[in-house]
Amino acid sequence: MIPATLWTAIVTLAIGLFYFYTGFRVGNLRARHDIKAPATSGHPEFDRAYRVQLNTLEQMGIFLPFLWVAAFYPIGWPWLAPLIGGIWLIGRIIYMRGYMADPSKRLAGAMMCGLTSIILFVIAACGVVKACLALRVM
Amino acid sequence: MIPATLWTAIVTLAIGLFYFYTGFRVGNLRARHDIKAPATSGHPEFDRAYRVQLNTLEQMGIFLPFLWVAAFYPIGWPWLAPLIGGIWLIGRIIYMRGYMADPSKRLAGAMMCGLTSIILFVIAACGVVKACLALRVM
Amino acid sequence: MIPATLWTAIVTLAIGLFYFYTGFRVGNLRARHDIKAPATSGHPEFDRAYRVQLNTLEQMGIFLPFLWVAAFYPIGWPWLAPLIGGIWLIGRIIYMRGYMADPSKRLAGAMMCGLTSIILFVIAACGVVKACLALRVM
Repeated sequence: MIPATLWTAIVTLAIGLFYFYTGFRVGNLRARHDIKAPATSGHPEFDRAYRVQLNTLEQMGIFLPFLWVAAFYPIGWPWLAPLIGGIWLIGRIIYMRGYMADPSKRLAGAMMCGLTSIILFVIAACGVVKACLALRVM
Repeated sequence: MIPATLWTAIVTLAIGLFYFYTGFRVGNLRARHDIKAPATSGHPEFDRAYRVQLNTLEQMGIFLPFLWVAAFYPIGWPWLAPLIGGIWLIGRIIYMRGYMADPSKRLAGAMMCGLTSIILFVIAACGVVKACLALRVM
Repeated sequence: MIPATLWTAIVTLAIGLFYFYTGFRVGNLRARHDIKAPATSGHPEFDRAYRVQLNTLEQMGIFLPFLWVAAFYPIGWPWLAPLIGGIWLIGRIIYMRGYMADPSKRLAGAMMCGLTSIILFVIAACGVVKACLALRVM
Protein backbone atom coordinates (compact mmCIF):
# COMPACT_ATOMS: atom_id res chain seq x y z
CA MET A 1 0.00 0.00 0.00
CA ILE A 2 1.33 3.41 -0.99
CA PRO A 3 1.36 5.72 2.07
CA ALA A 4 -0.38 9.12 1.98
CA THR A 5 2.79 11.24 1.84
CA LEU A 6 3.90 9.33 -1.24
CA TRP A 7 0.52 9.90 -2.89
CA THR A 8 0.85 13.55 -1.93
CA ALA A 9 4.27 13.68 -3.60
CA ILE A 10 2.83 12.10 -6.77
CA VAL A 11 -0.05 14.61 -6.87
CA THR A 12 2.44 17.47 -6.26
CA LEU A 13 4.58 16.36 -9.20
CA ALA A 14 1.47 16.13 -11.40
CA ILE A 15 0.38 19.64 -10.36
CA GLY A 16 3.90 20.98 -11.02
CA LEU A 17 3.98 19.35 -14.46
CA PHE A 18 0.57 20.79 -15.37
CA TYR A 19 1.67 24.24 -14.22
CA PHE A 20 4.88 23.89 -16.25
CA TYR A 21 2.67 23.20 -19.27
CA THR A 22 0.56 26.36 -18.70
CA GLY A 23 3.79 28.41 -18.58
CA PHE A 24 5.24 26.66 -21.64
CA ARG A 25 2.03 27.50 -23.56
CA VAL A 26 2.39 31.19 -22.63
CA GLY A 27 5.94 31.17 -24.01
CA ASN A 28 4.78 29.52 -27.25
CA LEU A 29 1.90 31.98 -27.74
CA ARG A 30 4.26 34.89 -26.99
CA ALA A 31 6.41 33.76 -29.91
CA ARG A 32 3.46 32.96 -32.24
CA HIS A 33 1.73 36.32 -31.74
CA ASP A 34 5.08 38.16 -31.56
CA ILE A 35 4.40 39.78 -28.17
CA LYS A 36 7.64 41.38 -27.03
CA ALA A 37 8.66 41.09 -23.37
CA PRO A 38 8.03 42.73 -20.92
CA ALA A 39 4.44 43.07 -22.31
CA THR A 40 2.02 40.54 -20.79
CA SER A 41 -0.87 41.43 -23.07
CA GLY A 42 -1.37 41.94 -26.80
CA HIS A 43 -3.49 39.13 -28.29
CA PRO A 44 -6.71 37.62 -26.84
CA GLU A 45 -5.37 34.04 -27.00
CA PHE A 46 -2.12 35.05 -25.28
CA ASP A 47 -3.99 37.08 -22.63
CA ARG A 48 -6.16 34.08 -21.79
CA ALA A 49 -3.20 31.70 -21.61
CA TYR A 50 -1.31 34.14 -19.36
CA ARG A 51 -4.29 34.45 -17.00
CA VAL A 52 -4.62 30.64 -16.91
CA GLN A 53 -0.95 30.36 -15.91
CA LEU A 54 -1.08 33.11 -13.28
CA ASN A 55 -4.40 31.90 -11.86
CA THR A 56 -2.98 28.38 -11.59
CA LEU A 57 -0.03 29.78 -9.62
CA GLU A 58 -2.40 31.84 -7.44
CA GLN A 59 -4.47 28.74 -6.64
CA MET A 60 -1.36 26.60 -6.04
CA GLY A 61 -0.40 29.15 -3.38
CA ILE A 62 -3.59 28.16 -1.55
CA PHE A 63 -3.70 24.48 -2.37
CA LEU A 64 -0.14 23.16 -1.95
CA PRO A 65 0.33 24.43 1.64
CA PHE A 66 -3.03 22.87 2.63
CA LEU A 67 -2.07 19.63 0.85
CA TRP A 68 1.24 19.25 2.68
CA VAL A 69 -0.15 20.23 6.07
CA ALA A 70 -2.77 17.51 5.49
CA ALA A 71 0.04 15.08 4.52
CA PHE A 72 2.09 15.82 7.67
CA TYR A 73 -0.97 15.75 9.97
CA PRO A 74 -3.27 13.15 8.40
CA ILE A 75 -6.79 12.35 9.53
CA GLY A 76 -8.17 8.79 9.75
CA TRP A 77 -8.42 8.45 5.94
CA PRO A 78 -4.97 9.71 4.91
CA TRP A 79 -5.62 8.99 1.21
CA LEU A 80 -8.46 11.57 1.21
CA ALA A 81 -6.18 14.64 0.90
CA PRO A 82 -4.19 13.45 -2.14
CA LEU A 83 -7.45 12.21 -3.72
CA ILE A 84 -8.84 15.73 -3.39
CA GLY A 85 -5.54 16.93 -4.87
CA GLY A 86 -6.31 14.83 -7.95
CA ILE A 87 -9.85 16.27 -8.18
CA TRP A 88 -8.42 19.80 -7.83
CA LEU A 89 -6.02 19.10 -10.72
CA ILE A 90 -8.93 17.90 -12.90
CA GLY A 91 -10.72 21.15 -11.94
CA ARG A 92 -7.66 23.12 -13.12
CA ILE A 93 -7.70 21.31 -16.46
CA ILE A 94 -11.44 22.03 -16.87
CA TYR A 95 -10.72 25.67 -15.95
CA MET A 96 -7.94 25.92 -18.54
CA ARG A 97 -10.00 24.33 -21.32
CA GLY A 98 -13.02 26.50 -20.52
CA TYR A 99 -10.98 29.71 -20.26
CA MET A 100 -9.08 29.12 -23.52
CA ALA A 101 -12.40 28.52 -25.34
CA ASP A 102 -14.14 31.57 -23.81
CA PRO A 103 -13.30 33.45 -20.54
CA SER A 104 -16.96 33.19 -19.47
CA LYS A 105 -16.61 29.38 -19.47
CA ARG A 106 -13.93 29.42 -16.76
CA LEU A 107 -16.40 29.44 -13.86
CA ALA A 108 -17.16 25.69 -13.60
CA GLY A 109 -13.46 24.84 -13.21
CA ALA A 110 -12.83 27.82 -10.93
CA MET A 111 -15.66 26.77 -8.59
CA MET A 112 -14.47 23.15 -8.58
CA CYS A 113 -11.02 24.35 -7.48
CA GLY A 114 -12.38 26.79 -4.89
CA LEU A 115 -14.63 24.12 -3.39
CA THR A 116 -11.89 21.46 -3.25
CA SER A 117 -9.56 24.05 -1.64
CA ILE A 118 -12.13 24.68 1.11
CA ILE A 119 -12.64 20.93 1.66
CA LEU A 120 -8.88 20.41 1.83
CA PHE A 121 -8.57 23.26 4.35
CA VAL A 122 -11.16 21.52 6.56
CA ILE A 123 -9.29 18.19 6.24
CA ALA A 124 -5.93 19.82 7.07
CA ALA A 125 -7.47 21.71 10.00
CA CYS A 126 -9.00 18.46 11.34
CA GLY A 127 -5.59 16.78 11.06
CA VAL A 128 -3.96 19.61 13.01
CA VAL A 129 -6.68 19.54 15.71
CA LYS A 130 -6.32 15.75 15.93
CA ALA A 131 -2.55 16.15 16.41
CA CYS A 132 -3.13 18.75 19.15
CA LEU A 133 -5.61 16.47 20.96
CA ALA A 134 -3.17 13.54 20.69
CA LEU A 135 -0.58 15.68 22.54
CA ARG A 136 -2.99 16.29 25.41
CA VAL A 137 -3.79 12.61 25.81
CA MET A 138 -0.14 11.58 25.99
CA MET B 1 3.00 21.49 24.82
CA ILE B 2 2.36 21.96 21.10
CA PRO B 3 5.61 21.33 19.13
CA ALA B 4 7.00 23.93 16.71
CA THR B 5 6.10 22.05 13.51
CA LEU B 6 2.47 21.88 14.64
CA TRP B 7 2.45 25.62 15.35
CA THR B 8 4.02 26.11 11.91
CA ALA B 9 1.22 24.06 10.34
CA ILE B 10 -1.41 26.14 12.18
CA VAL B 11 0.21 29.41 11.00
CA THR B 12 0.44 28.02 7.44
CA LEU B 13 -3.29 27.19 7.43
CA ALA B 14 -4.09 30.69 8.74
CA ILE B 15 -1.93 32.28 6.01
CA GLY B 16 -3.59 30.10 3.34
CA LEU B 17 -7.04 31.02 4.61
CA PHE B 18 -6.20 34.75 4.58
CA TYR B 19 -4.82 34.45 1.05
CA PHE B 20 -7.95 32.58 -0.03
CA TYR B 21 -9.95 35.55 1.30
CA THR B 22 -7.89 38.07 -0.73
CA GLY B 23 -8.58 36.02 -3.88
CA PHE B 24 -12.28 35.62 -3.03
CA ARG B 25 -12.54 39.40 -2.66
CA VAL B 26 -11.01 39.93 -6.12
CA GLY B 27 -13.63 37.58 -7.59
CA ASN B 28 -16.45 39.45 -5.82
CA LEU B 29 -15.20 42.87 -6.97
CA ARG B 30 -14.78 41.54 -10.51
CA ALA B 31 -18.50 40.67 -10.51
CA ARG B 32 -19.59 43.90 -8.75
CA HIS B 33 -17.71 46.23 -11.12
CA ASP B 34 -18.44 43.98 -14.12
CA ILE B 35 -14.77 43.56 -15.13
CA LYS B 36 -14.65 40.88 -17.78
CA ALA B 37 -11.85 38.28 -17.72
CA PRO B 38 -9.04 38.25 -18.83
CA ALA B 39 -8.80 41.95 -17.80
CA THR B 40 -7.09 42.45 -14.42
CA SER B 41 -7.79 46.15 -14.24
CA GLY B 42 -10.82 48.41 -14.73
CA HIS B 43 -11.95 49.93 -11.42
CA PRO B 44 -9.74 51.46 -8.67
CA GLU B 45 -11.24 49.26 -5.93
CA PHE B 46 -10.73 46.12 -8.03
CA ASP B 47 -7.18 47.15 -8.98
CA ARG B 48 -6.25 47.59 -5.33
CA ALA B 49 -7.79 44.26 -4.32
CA TYR B 50 -5.96 42.49 -7.15
CA ARG B 51 -2.63 44.01 -6.12
CA VAL B 52 -3.29 42.99 -2.49
CA GLN B 53 -3.89 39.40 -3.62
CA LEU B 54 -0.87 39.23 -5.92
CA ASN B 55 1.42 40.96 -3.41
CA THR B 56 0.29 38.49 -0.74
CA LEU B 57 1.23 35.62 -3.07
CA GLU B 58 4.56 37.29 -3.88
CA GLN B 59 5.37 37.64 -0.18
CA MET B 60 4.20 34.07 0.59
CA GLY B 61 6.79 32.92 -1.98
CA ILE B 62 9.44 34.43 0.31
CA PHE B 63 7.90 33.68 3.68
CA LEU B 64 6.59 30.09 3.52
CA PRO B 65 9.90 28.52 2.38
CA PHE B 66 11.74 30.37 5.20
CA LEU B 67 9.02 29.29 7.67
CA TRP B 68 9.29 25.60 6.82
CA VAL B 69 13.08 25.54 6.69
CA ALA B 70 12.95 27.08 10.18
CA ALA B 71 10.44 24.40 11.22
CA PHE B 72 12.62 21.53 9.94
CA TYR B 73 15.85 23.01 11.35
CA PRO B 74 14.75 24.76 14.56
CA ILE B 75 16.94 26.92 16.75
CA GLY B 76 16.87 26.81 20.58
CA TRP B 77 13.49 28.59 20.76
CA PRO B 78 11.50 26.61 18.17
CA TRP B 79 8.30 28.57 18.86
CA LEU B 80 9.99 31.79 17.62
CA ALA B 81 9.55 31.05 13.88
CA PRO B 82 5.77 30.35 14.00
CA LEU B 83 5.34 33.36 16.33
CA ILE B 84 7.00 35.54 13.68
CA GLY B 85 4.67 33.85 11.17
CA GLY B 86 1.74 35.18 13.21
CA ILE B 87 3.24 38.70 13.29
CA TRP B 88 3.80 38.53 9.51
CA LEU B 89 0.14 37.60 9.02
CA ILE B 90 -0.95 40.58 11.14
CA GLY B 91 1.34 42.70 8.93
CA ARG B 92 -0.43 41.35 5.83
CA ILE B 93 -3.84 42.27 7.31
CA ILE B 94 -2.57 45.80 8.11
CA TYR B 95 -1.20 46.00 4.53
CA MET B 96 -4.55 44.92 3.05
CA ARG B 97 -6.59 47.34 5.16
CA GLY B 98 -4.20 50.22 4.42
CA TYR B 99 -4.02 49.48 0.68
CA MET B 100 -7.80 49.15 0.26
CA ALA B 101 -8.27 52.53 2.02
CA ASP B 102 -5.53 54.27 0.01
CA PRO B 103 -2.51 52.76 -1.84
CA SER B 104 -0.19 55.23 -0.09
CA LYS B 105 -1.19 53.68 3.25
CA ARG B 106 0.20 50.27 2.33
CA LEU B 107 3.77 51.00 3.45
CA ALA B 108 3.42 50.29 7.22
CA GLY B 109 2.12 46.76 6.55
CA ALA B 110 4.61 46.20 3.72
CA MET B 111 7.55 47.17 5.93
CA MET B 112 6.28 44.99 8.79
CA CYS B 113 6.18 42.00 6.40
CA GLY B 114 9.58 42.79 4.86
CA LEU B 115 11.17 43.10 8.28
CA THR B 116 9.62 39.89 9.64
CA SER B 117 10.75 38.07 6.46
CA ILE B 118 14.34 39.19 7.05
CA ILE B 119 14.17 38.14 10.73
CA LEU B 120 12.74 34.76 9.73
CA PHE B 121 15.52 34.32 7.16
CA VAL B 122 18.10 34.90 9.91
CA ILE B 123 16.33 32.39 12.19
CA ALA B 124 16.13 29.76 9.43
CA ALA B 125 19.79 30.35 8.48
CA CYS B 126 20.83 29.97 12.15
CA GLY B 127 18.85 26.70 12.30
CA VAL B 128 20.61 25.40 9.21
CA VAL B 129 24.05 26.43 10.51
CA LYS B 130 23.24 24.77 13.86
CA ALA B 131 22.29 21.55 12.03
CA CYS B 132 25.56 21.67 10.05
CA LEU B 133 27.60 22.16 13.23
CA ALA B 134 25.76 19.29 14.93
CA LEU B 135 26.88 17.02 12.07
CA ARG B 136 30.53 17.94 12.62
CA VAL B 137 30.34 17.20 16.34
CA MET B 138 28.85 13.74 15.84
CA MET C 1 28.85 14.94 5.43
CA ILE C 2 25.88 17.28 5.05
CA PRO C 3 22.73 15.26 4.23
CA ALA C 4 20.62 16.07 1.15
CA THR C 5 17.67 17.63 3.02
CA LEU C 6 20.06 20.08 4.68
CA TRP C 7 21.57 21.01 1.30
CA THR C 8 17.99 21.41 0.01
CA ALA C 9 17.22 23.77 2.91
CA ILE C 10 20.36 25.81 2.15
CA VAL C 11 19.42 26.07 -1.55
CA THR C 12 15.84 27.02 -0.59
CA LEU C 13 17.09 29.84 1.64
CA ALA C 14 19.37 31.08 -1.16
CA ILE C 15 16.46 31.02 -3.65
CA GLY C 16 14.23 32.86 -1.16
CA LEU C 17 16.92 35.49 -0.56
CA PHE C 18 17.41 36.02 -4.31
CA TYR C 19 13.66 36.36 -4.80
CA PHE C 20 13.51 38.83 -1.90
CA TYR C 21 16.14 40.88 -3.75
CA THR C 22 14.11 40.91 -7.01
CA GLY C 23 11.10 42.21 -5.05
CA PHE C 24 13.21 44.77 -3.18
CA ARG C 25 14.51 46.07 -6.51
CA VAL C 26 10.94 46.52 -7.80
CA GLY C 27 10.11 48.57 -4.71
CA ASN C 28 13.22 50.74 -5.21
CA LEU C 29 12.50 51.34 -8.90
CA ARG C 30 8.86 52.14 -8.06
CA ALA C 31 10.10 54.94 -5.80
CA ARG C 32 12.83 56.14 -8.21
CA HIS C 33 10.52 56.40 -11.23
CA ASP C 34 7.61 57.61 -9.07
CA ILE C 35 5.20 54.87 -10.19
CA LYS C 36 2.16 55.09 -7.95
CA ALA C 37 0.54 51.86 -6.66
CA PRO C 38 -1.54 50.03 -7.82
CA ALA C 39 0.13 50.59 -11.24
CA THR C 40 2.59 47.80 -12.17
CA SER C 41 3.88 49.54 -15.28
CA GLY C 42 5.12 53.01 -16.20
CA HIS C 43 8.87 52.96 -16.94
CA PRO C 44 10.81 50.40 -19.03
CA GLU C 45 13.33 49.69 -16.26
CA PHE C 46 10.53 49.18 -13.70
CA ASP C 47 8.55 47.00 -16.12
CA ARG C 48 11.53 44.73 -16.67
CA ALA C 49 12.28 44.47 -12.94
CA TYR C 50 8.63 43.64 -12.22
CA ARG C 51 8.59 40.90 -14.86
CA VAL C 52 11.86 39.49 -13.46
CA GLN C 53 10.27 39.31 -10.00
CA LEU C 54 7.00 37.78 -11.18
CA ASN C 55 8.74 35.32 -13.50
CA THR C 56 11.00 34.25 -10.64
CA LEU C 57 7.90 33.58 -8.52
CA GLU C 58 6.25 31.71 -11.43
CA GLN C 59 9.32 29.50 -11.83
CA MET C 60 9.65 28.95 -8.05
CA GLY C 61 6.09 27.56 -8.18
CA ILE C 62 7.44 24.84 -10.46
CA PHE C 63 10.88 24.36 -8.96
CA LEU C 64 10.42 24.35 -5.17
CA PRO C 65 7.75 21.59 -5.11
CA PHE C 66 9.97 19.40 -7.34
CA LEU C 67 13.00 20.19 -5.14
CA TRP C 68 11.29 19.14 -1.90
CA VAL C 69 9.67 16.02 -3.37
CA ALA C 70 13.19 15.06 -4.52
CA ALA C 71 14.50 15.81 -0.99
CA PHE C 72 11.84 13.63 0.68
CA TYR C 73 12.18 10.80 -1.86
CA PRO C 74 15.87 10.85 -2.82
CA ILE C 75 17.46 8.75 -5.53
CA GLY C 76 20.86 7.07 -5.18
CA TRP C 77 22.76 10.39 -5.49
CA PRO C 78 20.78 12.53 -3.02
CA TRP C 79 23.10 15.55 -3.49
CA LEU C 80 22.06 15.75 -7.19
CA ALA C 81 18.74 17.55 -6.57
CA PRO C 82 20.14 20.40 -4.43
CA LEU C 83 23.09 20.71 -6.88
CA ILE C 84 20.56 21.24 -9.70
CA GLY C 85 18.86 23.75 -7.37
CA GLY C 86 22.12 25.71 -7.31
CA ILE C 87 22.41 25.58 -11.12
CA TRP C 88 18.79 26.75 -11.41
CA LEU C 89 19.56 29.71 -9.14
CA ILE C 90 22.56 30.65 -11.32
CA GLY C 91 20.19 30.43 -14.31
CA ARG C 92 17.80 32.84 -12.56
CA ILE C 93 20.65 35.31 -11.97
CA ILE C 94 21.69 35.07 -15.65
CA TYR C 95 18.02 35.58 -16.60
CA MET C 96 17.75 38.68 -14.39
CA ARG C 97 20.97 40.25 -15.67
CA GLY C 98 20.02 39.52 -19.29
CA TYR C 99 16.45 40.80 -18.90
CA MET C 100 17.49 44.03 -17.14
CA ALA C 101 20.01 44.75 -19.94
CA ASP C 102 17.54 43.95 -22.75
CA PRO C 103 14.38 41.76 -22.67
CA SER C 104 15.60 39.86 -25.75
CA LYS C 105 18.63 38.69 -23.72
CA ARG C 106 16.47 36.83 -21.20
CA LEU C 107 16.26 33.60 -23.21
CA ALA C 108 19.57 31.97 -22.19
CA GLY C 109 18.69 32.18 -18.50
CA ALA C 110 15.06 31.20 -19.13
CA MET C 111 16.10 28.07 -21.04
CA MET C 112 18.65 27.14 -18.37
CA CYS C 113 15.88 27.32 -15.74
CA GLY C 114 13.36 25.44 -17.89
CA LEU C 115 15.85 22.67 -18.60
CA THR C 116 16.95 22.29 -14.98
CA SER C 117 13.25 22.19 -13.95
CA ILE C 118 12.63 19.29 -16.35
CA ILE C 119 15.73 17.45 -15.10
CA LEU C 120 14.62 17.97 -11.49
CA PHE C 121 11.14 16.67 -12.34
CA VAL C 122 12.73 13.48 -13.72
CA ILE C 123 14.88 13.11 -10.60
CA ALA C 124 11.89 13.65 -8.28
CA ALA C 125 9.76 11.23 -10.32
CA CYS C 126 12.53 8.60 -10.14
CA GLY C 127 12.69 9.08 -6.37
CA VAL C 128 8.94 8.59 -6.07
CA VAL C 129 8.99 5.48 -8.28
CA LYS C 130 11.92 4.12 -6.25
CA ALA C 131 9.94 4.67 -3.03
CA CYS C 132 6.89 2.87 -4.57
CA LEU C 133 9.05 -0.10 -5.62
CA ALA C 134 10.65 -0.27 -2.15
CA LEU C 135 7.12 -0.68 -0.71
CA ARG C 136 6.43 -3.66 -2.94
CA VAL C 137 9.65 -5.40 -1.97
CA MET C 138 8.97 -5.08 1.78
